[in-house]
Amino acid sequence: MKHSKDLLQECAALLAALRSEMPLVHCMTNTVVTGYTANCLLSIGAAPAMIDDCAEAAQFAGIAGGLLINVGTITEVQATAMRAAVDAANATGTPWVLDPVAVGALSLRTALANELKAKTPAIIRGNASEIMALAGFESTARGVDSTARVEEARDAADLLCVQTGATVLATGEIDFIASLGEVPISVANGHPIMTRVTGVGCAQGALAAAFAAVSDQNYRLAALATALVMAVAGDMAAERTLAPGSFQIALLDALNAISPEDLMARGKVLV
Amino acid sequence: MKHSKDLLQECAALLAALRSEMPLVHCMTNTVVTGYTANCLLSIGAAPAMIDDCAEAAQFAGIAGGLLINVGTITEVQATAMRAAVDAANATGTPWVLDPVAVGALSLRTALANELKAKTPAIIRGNASEIMALAGFESTARGVDSTARVEEARDAADLLCVQTGATVLATGEIDFIASLGEVPISVANGHPIMTRVTGVGCAQGALAAAFAAVSDQNYRLAALATALVMAVAGDMAAERTLAPGSFQIALLDALNAISPEDLMARGKVLV
Amino acid sequence: MKHSKDLLQECAALLAALRSEMPLVHCMTNTVVTGYTANCLLSIGAAPAMIDDCAEAAQFAGIAGGLLINVGTITEVQATAMRAAVDAANATGTPWVLDPVAVGALSLRTALANELKAKTPAIIRGNASEIMALAGFESTARGVDSTARVEEARDAADLLCVQTGATVLATGEIDFIASLGEVPISVANGHPIMTRVTGVGCAQGALAAAFAAVSDQNYRLAALATALVMAVAGDMAAERTLAPGSFQIALLDALNAISPEDLMARGKVLV
Repeated sequence: MKHSKDLLQECAALLAALRSEMPLVHCMTNTVVTGYTANCLLSIGAAPAMIDDCAEAAQFAGIAGGLLINVGTITEVQATAMRAAVDAANATGTPWVLDPVAVGALSLRTALANELKAKTPAIIRGNASEIMALAGFESTARGVDSTARVEEARDAADLLCVQTGATVLATGEIDFIASLGEVPISVANGHPIMTRVTGVGCAQGALAAAFAAVSDQNYRLAALATALVMAVAGDMAAERTLAPGSFQIALLDALNAISPEDLMARGKVLV
Repeated sequence: MKHSKDLLQECAALLAALRSEMPLVHCMTNTVVTGYTANCLLSIGAAPAMIDDCAEAAQFAGIAGGLLINVGTITEVQATAMRAAVDAANATGTPWVLDPVAVGALSLRTALANELKAKTPAIIRGNASEIMALAGFESTARGVDSTARVEEARDAADLLCVQTGATVLATGEIDFIASLGEVPISVANGHPIMTRVTGVGCAQGALAAAFAAVSDQNYRLAALATALVMAVAGDMAAERTLAPGSFQIALLDALNAISPEDLMARGKVLV
Repeated sequence: MKHSKDLLQECAALLAALRSEMPLVHCMTNTVVTGYTANCLLSIGAAPAMIDDCAEAAQFAGIAGGLLINVGTITEVQATAMRAAVDAANATGTPWVLDPVAVGALSLRTALANELKAKTPAIIRGNASEIMALAGFESTARGVDSTARVEEARDAADLLCVQTGATVLATGEIDFIASLGEVPISVANGHPIMTRVTGVGCAQGALAAAFAAVSDQNYRLAALATALVMAVAGDMAAERTLAPGSFQIALLDALNAISPEDLMARGKVLV
């Protein structure tokens, strides 16, 4: 079992690798967060591309370093394109991330996420309610906000690992990373103001695809780096401002400024 | 007849109620302003959700506290989903807001808004040109900008109240609130810089759905609180900056910072 | 042949004309940049409208002063509406701009851009890779980022002028403007941080439509003003901040603040 200091060092190295390799990240995501997601990826050092046409999405998923599937404003047309992109990603070995936004109460996204979770996602990222719903637990979700606590979702995350083989990243006050046959990891960084800006969680899904692209198939490490980078950047931004508009901008600045050394010095990783 | 000071107190209480209840606001809106609308709702203290699939929109409109229908980038697919959501909202008693963006010159949105205005919206929010066009007056609209003055739109607002039973909020340099059988109300706060940022008017429609959700069916008060909160927040933000990019962010910060006391101290309400 | 100082004076006058006439700019663009594009147009002094329904787009293209066609997140539905809008623009004499985002590797956008380039665009704006791909050269494009250097794209820009009759604006570290039978122009302003914010290039396409609207069919001058205004505003914003989130906002502020005199004093135009 690795100590948290070793894990922090590996995350720091992965951040450096991301900035060196500038992976191309194909985002199929919701209409609320497209711009902010692209800016988060640019700030951290990756190259975003949002492509939603069915034929083009299948072409691009094979070119990209990583693929994000976020069902936040799913439509039938986008669902069809997502299926094609996931199949292309799997055919070409592109790792892909599933973000099951608000799965549970709503029919189209719930059916689609349940269909896609069987198609070997590298990482599944969601809040506690979403992870519980996707694992088949009774959820207490209230729309897109999570009311179930991350702690209560740990059993669901473990079950979702068994069901899918994916690394599961359940985000919340404490982020939780579960991988099949591995010791679970928690990240205790981050600030409540992050929930007052739309798209922070969705951007985290995109970061997961970026880190997966440069992780040499170590998706547990990619998920940890994702959680750590966003939460430490959140801490850094929260030191500058706690007003939500200004924080949204400060978080982009922090994603650009954050260094491997910042991760080492500030990261609160519990194994 | 209530004095303006009484109305200010009621608005202040409604703002406190919104922050306490954190209503879930279902936004079916245009693609330009989705992110900014969500951030405005989060800043004021509500919980946004943008859901556009026809089946899901009908499901969610019944769960949400309020529904916004904004036709700014309407498509045939979105129009179908909006009809389903409005019917579901009416069936479950969810108040909904109609924002007839650029209605008048363009065919699909004009037909849809005229169809939907017969389905008992709680509040109709638009600029003077849009209110005039929706009431059936000859409009002088130039695209999505309003060139008709709010003063000229008062007759149209009154007629629209008679036609629909809705409270009509006509926004502009002076905001105007008309309700059937009630004394009209004006709000004289706000700053011209608010027209140099995209989505301020559209976000106001979303705030109207949020206030309607916590208003106990007092939609006149909800419309007044909407106008007052956005205009006073605009005043507060304009004191920080008059550069449009910075103002966009300062307005989000002001929506978070604005207190019931700020409304009482700054509100310019004319009955 | 005009000297660069004469051209700077003409650009300064065109900026003043834009602010006086406030042209209505119809943007059919990608879902990532809609909000930022609208805010850039508002900041410079134009009036944006994003309209994508097929029937409405055809109606509005005839009313607008300029039309932008940006294929960044193209779908079959949007492609159909773009064809209708371009035909309406051509029928009514509305100048239109083609932005061939990521053309080359992806099938739908490549076919559409090649179809539309035959329909007399006033201006074609792209990075070096996109200009090369649209001209029929072998491209080295890597998704939506340009890896071909603007210098290498000059032959492609010249060929594209011959093929289409359009003014070609190839943007990059040095912007390059090619027009049939005219001396090429280069603009050496701008800062690398502009590539760390999503939508700067896309917003430039929208500015091109705004300047074309007030240019009295002098599209070479409109393209030059576009390149110059965005690059000088970039210089001004980069003097305030080099953090990407803050820069995104500072660029909007600079587009509002930039004066005809700033263009004269700072512009680096090479004829």
